[in-house]
Order: sequence, then structure tokens, then C-alpha cells
Amino acid sequence: MILYGRNPVREALRGRRRVHRAWATERAARELWLTGIPVQRASAEEIAARCGSPAHQGVCAEAEGFPYVGEGDLLAREPRFLLVLDELQDPQNLGAICRSAEAAGVDGVAIAERRAAEITPAACKASAGAVEHLRIARVRNVADFVLAARERGLWAYGAALDAPRAYSEVDLSGGVLIVVGAEGRGLRPRVAGACDELVRIPMRGRVESLNASAAAAILLFAVPAP
Amino acid sequence: MILYGRNPVREALRGRRRVHRAWATERAARELWLTGIPVQRASAEEIAARCGSPAHQGVCAEAEGFPYVGEGDLLAREPRFLLVLDELQDPQNLGAICRSAEAAGVDGVAIAERRAAEITPAACKASAGAVEHLRIARVRNVADFVLAARERGLWAYGAALDAPRAYSEVDLSGGVLIVVGAEGRGLRPRVAGACDELVRIPMRGRVESLNASAAAAILLFAVPAP
Repeated sequence: MILYGRNPVREALRGRRRVHRAWATERAARELWLTGIPVQRASAEEIAARCGSPAHQGVCAEAEGFPYVGEGDLLAREPRFLLVLDELQDPQNLGAICRSAEAAGVDGVAIAERRAAEITPAACKASAGAVEHLRIARVRNVADFVLAARERGLWAYGAALDAPRAYSEVDLSGGVLIVVGAEGRGLRPRVAGACDELVRIPMRGRVESLNASAAAAILLFAVPAP
Repeated sequence: MILYGRNPVREALRGRRRVHRAWATERAARELWLTGIPVQRASAEEIAARCGSPAHQGVCAEAEGFPYVGEGDLLAREPRFLLVLDELQDPQNLGAICRSAEAAGVDGVAIAERRAAEITPAACKASAGAVEHLRIARVRNVADFVLAARERGLWAYGAALDAPRAYSEVDLSGGVLIVVGAEGRGLRPRVAGACDELVRIPMRGRVESLNASAAAAILLFAVPAP
């Protein structure tokens, strides 16, 4: 996988996966963090052609695929704070949400294995490299994963526009799983049904919903530090 | 200005500015909300060429420029909840933040008049049309605006990574102004200095900052309903 952009490449070098080599412009190659791997000089145009994006900031790198953890691994270490994303479609949204999740201190993120965005280079870029420090699992069945997490003692809160209680009225301390649905569609019924409770973010304006990334940030940061 | 996308065009029709006419594909033209203006059938390619974006969802419309309110107007109506954006650069971020601000129920948004993103069609799209229902002013001097708002009785909280107190430790009720800085740069010193207090969003991960849109959503929704 060809990662691109300063933060994504830097965090990959600080993270878990193998980074084989990088291509950098004269200017980007002088940055002090770009060490430990072979770096080849390249023009901005060559880098854009290699990574397929103009947003490379003068650097791209060849790395192994994203190091997902297993579904079981996510639950094995007694997590206290997990995020589940139900069929999110947009890699940019996925990346932005992962950035907020990492900053909020989640123990891991579960995403759907099928019909959902994956951790692509665009998602890595949107996360500012935060995905490199996150445990992310692709799960076969999102509803089953929610139920399995509940068996481990986590309380599962799903975001829903029409839920009777607001997130600020529930107790988010002591082990929670936040479940956020796809852009514009929300949670699938079986996933909503697998949660302990649905909560809404109170809307005080005329436009009826937040984007998935804003909703996730609000809920994740409402969870108190352990 | 050529607006594009279903939500932006629909909300513009529900909002304050004049919309002169629309172009829509056969399919989009059948949507019930697209009424009250002349609608011309067009192919997806023609619409893309007219609005300059592939993200038009089958509809674009010619509307007058965004109806900013005056700087004084924003303060004249005894606002209790304002958002100030200090030289935000990216129209997508500006739009996403405006969507969260509208949903959070702000009385208005102030953006810098120069060296800052404006309410472009891309910003309207990223806001899902929420800008049509927001009072937005372009202010000449952001720091002066913050001071003027404080004279009106608002308490100004600026977001800063290294602030001693967390936003959750301060009283956000009873009339506040939230001030958020540019992507990756934060508040300019004079703007930070104009605030009553700087607050941070506690970071619990390894990556050091949130994106401006997530930070704004978290702070805006931490403000209690009046």
C-alpha cells in the first residue's frame, strides 16, 4: 500500500507496520523524522503519479497492508472503551472518525468486513496517521460483535436520531461501546437491536442531522476518562 | 452563485436568499421539494459542467450570493451563543463546522473577512445546506469582534491545545462565544489574548490534535441548551 502525506508516513514509521521505502521531494526529504528507510528523491509530479493523489505534501511510502487485529483480539484484552462503525461508506469519514477515536483514547475500533469503507491510504490521510496507533478489527457481523462485547461487560450505546434519551442523560462511565451508523442511514435494525440503549444527540437547529464524523466526535468525547 | 447537491438546493429554497432557477436530471426533477422556481432538464454531465463538481447529485441552482449579515447585526440581537472561526482555510471544514453549529443551535457565526475560507458552493455542500439557516458575518478583525462580544456580556472561550483547563471544567452556560482557530495552526496570539479563557480538549492518544471540525463539534455540543 502506498501511503502519502507527512502525518500518515511519519506515524506509520512510529507505528506497527513495516514501511519499505519512501519517495520524497528535495524539501520533504530534509525533514528530520524521515529516517530508518531508504528515501528516493522524486518530483512532486512523480509522487502524485505513484500515490494517485495530489495531497501528498511531497512524500509517499510503500508499506505493508494495514495491520488489522482479529475480532477476538479486540475483545480479549478487557477493553473498556470501544467504537463500532456500522457500514460507513466513505474512507474520508472513516479516517476522520479514527482520528477522533484515537484522540479520545478508545481501546479499539470495529468496522464491518463487507459493504464498508476500509483503511485505505485516503483513510490514513484523513486520520492524520492516527490509524497507525489504533487497534482496528474488521468484523464479520456487526450485531454479533456488539452482543459479544456486551457479554464481556461493556454497555453498548447506539446513536439514533429518534432515540428517547439524549447521550448526556446516560451514564457513559465504566466500560462502553459506542455504535455509529452509516452516513445518512443510521444503524441497521439488527445492529440497533443489539445495543443496550439508543441515544440521540439533541438537535437544536432546522437541519436534521450531523455528519457521521461530528456525531462520533461528540459521543466519543462525552465518555469520561477511565 | 451556482449551488449544487440535493440538501444545499433544498435548504436554499427553504432559506433566505433568492434562487433564480435550477437544472436537474430527469430523476432529480421528480423530487417533490424542487418547486417554486423554473427547473430545466439537464444531463448529469451538463450539470457537472455548470457547477464544476461531480458531487451534484443531479441538481444545481443559480442563486444570489450568500446573504451574510453585518458584523453589528450579529451582536445587536442579544445573542447567547456565538461561534467565531479564526482564519479557517478549507471551505469543506468551514461547511462541516457550520453544519454542527446550526445543529447545536448557535445564534450566529463570525468568520474572518480576509485570508479565510468563505461560504462557497463547496462550503454549502459540506454543510448539507445548514448555512442557509445560519446568521454568518464576515468580520474585519476577529480579535476586535471577540472583545465587542464580551462587552455584550458573552464569555469568550478559545480552543487551545496547551490551555491549563479542559473545556469540561469550565461553566459553558449563560452566554458564550466559542473561538476556534485554523487547521493545524490554532488561534493567532491576538485572538487568543482577546478571549476570557483558553480551554483544551483533553487528548488521550498519541496523535496530538483533532481536526478543526471535530474540535468545533465537541465544544459546541458541550454548551448546554439555554
